[in-house]
Amino acid sequence: MRFMRYLVIYDITDDNLRLRVAETLKDYGLSHIQYSAFVGALRRNKLNSLMVDLRRLIGDATENVQIYPLCDACFRGRRMIGKPKRYELDEESGKPKAAYF
Amino acid sequence: MRFMRYLVIYDITDDNLRLRVAETLKDYGLSHIQYSAFVGALRRNKLNSLMVDLRRLIGDATENVQIYPLCDACFRGRRMIGKPKRYELDEESGKPKAAYF
Repeated sequence: MRFMRYLVIYDITDDNLRLRVAETLKDYGLSHIQYSAFVGALRRNKLNSLMVDLRRLIGDATENVQIYPLCDACFRGRRMIGKPKRYELDEESGKPKAAYF
Repeated sequence: MRFMRYLVIYDITDDNLRLRVAETLKDYGLSHIQYSAFVGALRRNKLNSLMVDLRRLIGDATENVQIYPLCDACFRGRRMIGKPKRYELDEESGKPKAAYF
């Protein structure tokens, strides 16, 4: 079963929920590329499992997560403006902290 | 010259700069799909012009904008969890306000 690359972007107002979504995405091995964006490769069954986990977290809340597959051509065509930031979850507070490259 | 669809995501700490980036993306006809994400189709020359404008805005600031092309297959493969939000810039403050579908 082959991997596919996905870009996950979220717009979550609730601080606690946003943290739990970020931790979930990190648990699936995705990389935290922006404050509200992760990217990484997943097998199809892992994507399905991730969606189940995210739906369980979000529930009926007015919050939004979007997942876009990125084929090799789309990924190669990406552009970056400004500086990349690297996010890590702070061990104590669990909140994302930006570490600059 | 044909259109290509792009997803633009940004991670901008400075409130004023973030607003100016959002207004620029709106001026290029892109749709505000999340607090820090726009999507829309651009001709190649418009994409280049947008990148010039964004580089001028960002300058040397430690801020980050990423642009991903989305081919038809990638766009069709998108998944959404939770509720879509629609953003509009408030006429008075110029700040984004979420309008829920």
